[in-house]
Amino acid sequence: MKNKNKVSNAVIRRLPRYLRILEEMHENGSMRVSSKELGAKTGFTASQIRQDLNQFGGFGQQGYGYNVPGLIQELENILGLAREYGLVIVGCGRLGRAIANFNYTYNRDFPVVAMFDSSPSVIGTTINEVVVADVATLPDFLKKHSVDIGVISVPKEAAEQTAEMLIRGKVKGIWNFAPWDVPETDGIPVENVHLSDGLQFLVYHISRNERP
Amino acid sequence: MKNKNKVSNAVIRRLPRYLRILEEMHENGSMRVSSKELGAKTGFTASQIRQDLNQFGGFGQQGYGYNVPGLIQELENILGLAREYGLVIVGCGRLGRAIANFNYTYNRDFPVVAMFDSSPSVIGTTINEVVVADVATLPDFLKKHSVDIGVISVPKEAAEQTAEMLIRGKVKGIWNFAPWDVPETDGIPVENVHLSDGLQFLVYHISRNERP
Repeated sequence: MKNKNKVSNAVIRRLPRYLRILEEMHENGSMRVSSKELGAKTGFTASQIRQDLNQFGGFGQQGYGYNVPGLIQELENILGLAREYGLVIVGCGRLGRAIANFNYTYNRDFPVVAMFDSSPSVIGTTINEVVVADVATLPDFLKKHSVDIGVISVPKEAAEQTAEMLIRGKVKGIWNFAPWDVPETDGIPVENVHLSDGLQFLVYHISRNERP
Repeated sequence: MKNKNKVSNAVIRRLPRYLRILEEMHENGSMRVSSKELGAKTGFTASQIRQDLNQFGGFGQQGYGYNVPGLIQELENILGLAREYGLVIVGCGRLGRAIANFNYTYNRDFPVVAMFDSSPSVIGTTINEVVVADVATLPDFLKKHSVDIGVISVPKEAAEQTAEMLIRGKVKGIWNFAPWDVPETDGIPVENVHLSDGLQFLVYHISRNERP
């Protein structure tokens, strides 16, 4: 799949959702889906879906719709999911452990290859088959191993320093859970996760229901 | 703040980000910001920001821009953040603990009022000052207490049953972390969190960097 035209991030952000819904449909035996059906299940409009998929070549056939396993394959190719991506988790508090566990349980294509922490009581313990190493050894580890994704799950105060270590160690992308935005520098893609943004979105709708 | 016109969810989803950036600016002493500056910091265009804020009345002044504390106040009002929202967490594994801890540390306006689990080894333990109760007592708890937000952090298999209990118990909104989408029924707002969607977005950009 080659597509050198720049597709907007808004479109790319919708693709994982399409893929997720299609995988569920496939598990339930669906082989074919119309953009209208896919719209109803994803919460987007049929025309939005057609427009998004047309940016990559379309994949659908008029009067037939989309072949479900075929479209899954195409979306996986577009998203770059054809290979595994190794994660290094920095910060093994509750959040780091939860991410490790989540990936271990639901995301086996994103194996956690190493975990790091600064606390003597955590270093040396085992989390989902991975032994936690001293964060002081992280730069050396990154020199010796090519790491796809660095996960930041340290407290806010340590986030910037952790990001610097990961960038200097040439990870290919950063998945940041600390409430401090890692800036996109040196062309390294960053996903800053802000759980409270979703919570505030929810609260907006709760409070709207309460307003007279 | 009254606004009975339906504003699109896409707009609402951007507001927490604006608010977050404005709060950071305010902490750093900024009292005034132009839509251009706010755009540079949030990653949106100046016209997008003006358009979004105009849906609620504007708040800016030509040639001056926005008053930072004033705009923070307006956004908090729009989002319904003027009061606290109590959370009940169902599922006290690593994820449930991480959410409890996250809210305890960074989100004090969203106090965790109760936590529930089904495992005898977890029931009775204390997590951030809250004693974990037996999930069998959840329906009764919800009868006696008005709960704002039910958090689902149980394994996938138990998600649907948990959602039913919360809906029957009349929580005002659901924040779901299980990888099974809670449908929006009975007008109860739902935020289905899919951490792996963000991870796949990140992987798209990593794999693009690798393509020739």
